[in-house]
Amino acid sequence: AGALCLADYESLAGGLLSAPVGDFISGGSGAELTLRGNRSALDRVRITPRVMAGVEAADPSGRLVGSASEMPVAVAPMAYQRLVHPEGELELAQAAADAGVPYVISTLSSYPLEKIPGECWFQLYWLRDRAVVEGLVDRAAGCSALVVTVDVPVMGRRLRDVRNGFALPDDVVAANLQTTREAHAAVPGVSAVAAHTASAFSPTVSWDDLEWLKRRTELPLVVKGILDPRDARRAAEIGATAVVVSNHGGRQLDGAVASIDALPEVVDAVGNDIDVLMDSGIRSGTDVLKALAVGASGVLIGRPLLWALAVDACDEAFGLLRTEVTDAMLLAGCADLAAVKGLTWRNDG
Amino acid sequence: AGALCLADYESLAGGLLSAPVGDFISGGSGAELTLRGNRSALDRVRITPRVMAGVEAADPSGRLVGSASEMPVAVAPMAYQRLVHPEGELELAQAAADAGVPYVISTLSSYPLEKIPGECWFQLYWLRDRAVVEGLVDRAAGCSALVVTVDVPVMGRRLRDVRNGFALPDDVVAANLQTTREAHAAVPGVSAVAAHTASAFSPTVSWDDLEWLKRRTELPLVVKGILDPRDARRAAEIGATAVVVSNHGGRQLDGAVASIDALPEVVDAVGNDIDVLMDSGIRSGTDVLKALAVGASGVLIGRPLLWALAVDACDEAFGLLRTEVTDAMLLAGCADLAAVKGLTWRNDG
Amino acid sequence: AGALCLADYESLAGGLLSAPVGDFISGGSGAELTLRGNRSALDRVRITPRVMAGVEAADPSGRLVGSASEMPVAVAPMAYQRLVHPEGELELAQAAADAGVPYVISTLSSYPLEKIPGECWFQLYWLRDRAVVEGLVDRAAGCSALVVTVDVPVMGRRLRDVRNGFALPDDVVAANLQTTREAHAAVPGVSAVAAHTASAFSPTVSWDDLEWLKRRTELPLVVKGILDPRDARRAAEIGATAVVVSNHGGRQLDGAVASIDALPEVVDAVGNDIDVLMDSGIRSGTDVLKALAVGASGVLIGRPLLWALAVDACDEAFGLLRTEVTDAMLLAGCADLAAVKGLTWRNDG
Amino acid sequence: AGALCLADYESLAGGLLSAPVGDFISGGSGAELTLRGNRSALDRVRITPRVMAGVEAADPSGRLVGSASEMPVAVAPMAYQRLVHPEGELELAQAAADAGVPYVISTLSSYPLEKIPGECWFQLYWLRDRAVVEGLVDRAAGCSALVVTVDVPVMGRRLRDVRNGFALPDDVVAANLQTTREAHAAVPGVSAVAAHTASAFSPTVSWDDLEWLKRRTELPLVVKGILDPRDARRAAEIGATAVVVSNHGGRQLDGAVASIDALPEVVDAVGNDIDVLMDSGIRSGTDVLKALAVGASGVLIGRPLLWALAVDACDEAFGLLRTEVTDAMLLAGCADLAAVKGLTWRNDG
Ligand SMILES: Cc1cc2nc3c(=O)[nH]c(=O)nc-3n(C[C@H](O)[C@H](O)[C@H](O)COP(=O)(O)O)c2cc1C
Ligand SMILES: Cc1cc2nc3c(=O)[nH]c(=O)nc-3n(C[C@H](O)[C@H](O)[C@H](O)COP(=O)(O)O)c2cc1C
Ligand SMILES: Cc1cc2nc3c(=O)[nH]c(=O)nc-3n(C[C@H](O)[C@H](O)[C@H](O)COP(=O)(O)O)c2cc1C
Ligand SMILES: Cc1cc2nc3c(=O)[nH]c(=O)nc-3n(C[C@H](O)[C@H](O)[C@H](O)COP(=O)(O)O)c2cc1C
Repeated sequence: AGALCLADYESLAGGLLSAPVGDFISGGSGAELTLRGNRSALDRVRITPRVMAGVEAADPSGRLVGSASEMPVAVAPMAYQRLVHPEGELELAQAAADAGVPYVISTLSSYPLEKIPGECWFQLYWLRDRAVVEGLVDRAAGCSALVVTVDVPVMGRRLRDVRNGFALPDDVVAANLQTTREAHAAVPGVSAVAAHTASAFSPTVSWDDLEWLKRRTELPLVVKGILDPRDARRAAEIGATAVVVSNHGGRQLDGAVASIDALPEVVDAVGNDIDVLMDSGIRSGTDVLKALAVGASGVLIGRPLLWALAVDACDEAFGLLRTEVTDAMLLAGCADLAAVKGLTWRNDG
Repeated sequence: AGALCLADYESLAGGLLSAPVGDFISGGSGAELTLRGNRSALDRVRITPRVMAGVEAADPSGRLVGSASEMPVAVAPMAYQRLVHPEGELELAQAAADAGVPYVISTLSSYPLEKIPGECWFQLYWLRDRAVVEGLVDRAAGCSALVVTVDVPVMGRRLRDVRNGFALPDDVVAANLQTTREAHAAVPGVSAVAAHTASAFSPTVSWDDLEWLKRRTELPLVVKGILDPRDARRAAEIGATAVVVSNHGGRQLDGAVASIDALPEVVDAVGNDIDVLMDSGIRSGTDVLKALAVGASGVLIGRPLLWALAVDACDEAFGLLRTEVTDAMLLAGCADLAAVKGLTWRNDG
Repeated sequence: AGALCLADYESLAGGLLSAPVGDFISGGSGAELTLRGNRSALDRVRITPRVMAGVEAADPSGRLVGSASEMPVAVAPMAYQRLVHPEGELELAQAAADAGVPYVISTLSSYPLEKIPGECWFQLYWLRDRAVVEGLVDRAAGCSALVVTVDVPVMGRRLRDVRNGFALPDDVVAANLQTTREAHAAVPGVSAVAAHTASAFSPTVSWDDLEWLKRRTELPLVVKGILDPRDARRAAEIGATAVVVSNHGGRQLDGAVASIDALPEVVDAVGNDIDVLMDSGIRSGTDVLKALAVGASGVLIGRPLLWALAVDACDEAFGLLRTEVTDAMLLAGCADLAAVKGLTWRNDG
Repeated sequence: AGALCLADYESLAGGLLSAPVGDFISGGSGAELTLRGNRSALDRVRITPRVMAGVEAADPSGRLVGSASEMPVAVAPMAYQRLVHPEGELELAQAAADAGVPYVISTLSSYPLEKIPGECWFQLYWLRDRAVVEGLVDRAAGCSALVVTVDVPVMGRRLRDVRNGFALPDDVVAANLQTTREAHAAVPGVSAVAAHTASAFSPTVSWDDLEWLKRRTELPLVVKGILDPRDARRAAEIGATAVVVSNHGGRQLDGAVASIDALPEVVDAVGNDIDVLMDSGIRSGTDVLKALAVGASGVLIGRPLLWALAVDACDEAFGLLRTEVTDAMLLAGCADLAAVKGLTWRNDG
């Protein structure tokens, strides 16, 4: 049987992927408290729908960080998509383009960023070598936004990967980088991917670097991985167009607050100055509705779309997601996204 | 063994009904968060009983939306009752009449509304064809109230039905309508019943339509499916006699707040202007007591009575319910419904 | 293996008692929400112990409703103790006497109240026949207190008993009453014990009756089964010496608040005017400590002692309980009961 | 497979230790509510990490009660370490020294305190015989701190030990004491270790004794086992250098508040006057981070290190712990411990 809802791709993909690859995608860091916390926190949010709104068809379209978007959704940056599908990024980005949804290219994409179709944002990891960073920023000039991920000074300890001795297969590489083979050879006690991160990424990236980057690019700047309102304010002051409230899907600091729980204070802190996106744990159209009611302008969705890619069902997945989002809007009496923002909610449990 | 309490009919009926019919009745939309949330929220409500009230026999009778009622309970409108019993609506309505409890006829009843015995209210779904609506309203003139259901602009995505390819059997029809065969043929990805709803119901129904209806009928108007206090106020302003705080038994917006949790704010909002009924998750006399203590004037009960109908035990079910209600009243020291409203409660958990 | 703690008697007795008798004792009413709620509410209470108190040996003795008591504990009134042991009340009361703890004789004791040894209080159910009530009150003149149970206008619906068709065996009778055989013959849909209660007990008992009783007896009056602070005040005004905050061990109104959760408001309401005892769910010395820290002057313990009686281990049970109470006091740095009352606590979870 | 995280040593050791020894270590008192509560309370604490802090390498070093320490961690005093490893205290203390972490020698160590290597603190149980106490204090002069444990006036009832008839094997003795054989012979109903405690320890130890001790020693005084802020203030007034907020790992008063939940009020009470350490339930670097964010200056870790000793992996365990701590600091954007203290947190659940 196929997928009846976006969340179904997890089990569908589970049957297809090798255990180490499945774990690499599903897993979180440490005891996976934050991974689970993202879901339970979203489940606790309860919406109060409106009625009699006279809505023929809900319109979930709008602008997201300056991109037109058919839904308040973008595809989260996810590394190495060839792990699950030979066409990897090409396939998922094309489906996103067809669905009218921005696609965020990871620094660690397994196809070169120039080859990836559609309306794309480029996600930047801060590499130790400033020249490489400059090169990436230049190459990303054709993208519609630059997403700087700030929650990976080092990679979180993902114990499933360590246990599995996870390493990239030979034919999956960080295609944007002159990559060493580091990510392909597991070392005891640390996953190969984490080892690569440790040697390639700069843990010392700071707000000064962000200011430098702001001057260096004309793209709208999105700061991804913020949970503390003080950091959100700082990003706004530097001129970011948006922040993404995120705990990296529970893959970085285990024990970090759930994104949806951190969202209200961040929204309070930056008021209407900049856009506040959110990710980590979104699994359905109802979750999108919840994030918007709680205060986000839009969400990134990660794993569910990667699982859909794994079973070669990207178009279907975006179709289901659109159905779920418009369905939730209609049932909540919301003609458009502005109406969604006016919904009240409570924390139940 | 028979039923010892109203809740027992669920498992008793479970053994008799086909899986798709059982699922159609039991199921909710999406991940069924709201379906489960209705129950856990009711379980969390804890009552503080009174003692030494000198009550010989508790009297649960009163008026419900202008109907005399032996208990603060009405039978919730439920479509297609022939699905579970050949006499369907006839049987359940007769038992309700014998128990002195109003019966709400669904727009989608499988017997014509004119044939259904007892003190009935008519539930109206807003159909796209205004003439059909007018016809139904005219035909309902002999009922004691008109219940407009406002939480079904479209049908919620009930994944069990989609999975089962649920469609109506040939001999079960929407007897009040010149129905097409749509509800009888499953389409992949959508249940036949949902498809029928989509084509027949008007999603654009609005407060203006309710005003029109108010002028068109002399029956007391009940607005069913309200959770937001702002909507309750609006219904009161238009002249509704009552609202039903309801999330449609968890069958519409998954992630919607539990009815019992939404109740206090709605009661606050409409004060003493109109009656506030409640449904979704009521399974026992104690639950009825809780709903009244929290602020409702009465409740609708859905599934438990349909399960009782399935095992041909409607009279017994009303008897058990009455026992449970009067028993709970006596144990809480309440001679009548006014006393129940004076009980204090807390949210435990 | 024997009992290591008071709570162990439940499983030890479980192996010995017939299922219907075991159920009669363990069970609660309805869905047993309150039965379970008593336990979870007690578990949630967390104590902040004190240290360096210089306590050689904790002294848990004090006065309880005018009786000297070696522990802040009395044996709760429980009907028909011959159900679990041929010597029934005689055995358990003797053990209580040896432990220096008051024993409350039930109206429905299976030995006549005059035969029961030790420092006893008499528990009165309000029977329909005023002459019988007067007779019982007169016969109880030798007891140290009169406990009027006010939460049984009718018996709660205990579904286990209904399911089991529970009835008293021939050799177990309500020895204080000219009892009919009613409690010995099960009727479908209602347990024999409940049927007997319905015919013998007066549901109309009221505060006026309590005033009458207050004039009629010189014993200290204890009102058992109060949860609402308004009722506690009323009892105090009538001249009661104590109230017992109790939901009858989850056997009466299912959905009633846990006793320990109701306790603080009752204590607030009656201030220092009268004693506030508490029961329902106490299973250990730590629970006793909790009840006192939350505000009770003492507790009644029911089922654990009946289970101990079933395995003929009453003395051992009182010994264990005393060990648990003094141990908890020592570990909380409390030399005496006054110190226990000064402990702070929080609700965790 | 080896340990991937500090918590893994529990199951690794579980396979090696005899059941009674495993239970002696893992177990708590009573129903083990506090044992479990320590963990659930720590899991509920959620941290809000900071980003872009420009941290090359996190530095977890600092001073702990006057000792330089490579991490804000000390090894909790634990009796009889030869139970799990022939070299017992020698081995674990050496590993602590190599890791640059203080080791707390138990009064009940199975090697004499003089033999134990590295930077040590001595933990004092207050024995009935004042001369023995004086002797221990004198012998501990070479240690860097004196830790007085105040939550063991008697030993908590650890039912696993009673059930197992737990007694020390012949070759494990309290090497600092002229010990009797008491701890080696189980008595029915009480563990041999508890019996020994009862006869050897003084339950009457009081604040006066602490004042005496303060005058008697020049070592910094640490009072271990405090949960109530009033006791913390008292310790500060007497001149203690630090308190340890602890419930003895759930081994003393069952039902006591979780240490992490008690921590904020203690920190509030003693302000900046003295150091506040914390223990009970710490199982990972993230837990260390949480304790510091909530207000502790450092933590003691007990069982995980004993389990590591059991599998002869002390060095590896300290290595893992250091990795976990620095990793958590980096991911939370903290260059040093001062930054950790500035993190915000919430209680989730
Ligand atoms: C397999 C995988 C790879 C990821 N790679 C990146 C990445 O390269 N850059 C990045 O900023 N975030 C990356 N993330 C994090 C996602 O962008 C996103 O924050 C997270 O997946 C959201 O949570 P969700 O998967 O629960 O929707 C990755 C996540 C996963 C699951
Ligand atoms: C099988 C089924 C059919 C229903 N059909 C209708 C309907 O035709 N019209 C309507 O207003 N509500 C309908 N409802 C919703 C009920 O009126 C009611 O809101 C809900 O069942 C209450 O929850 P409960 O079943 O938990 O008591 C239906 C519910 C069920 C379970
Ligand atoms: C088997 C049984 C019989 C009881 N009989 C009486 C009774 O005759 N009179 C009364 O006031 N309470 C009666 N009770 C209630 C107890 O007095 C007490 O309120 C309750 O058991 C306390 O809860 P616990 O069992 O959890 O300690 C009975 C309870 C049980 C379990
Ligand atoms: C086996 C064992 C022995 C212990 N012995 C002592 C002791 O001799 N002195 C003492 O102060 N605390 C003792 N404790 C308590 C620890 O110092 C510490 O407070 C507790 O273990 C912290 O909880 P954790 O094990 O969850 O980290 C002991 C704990 C265990 C598990």
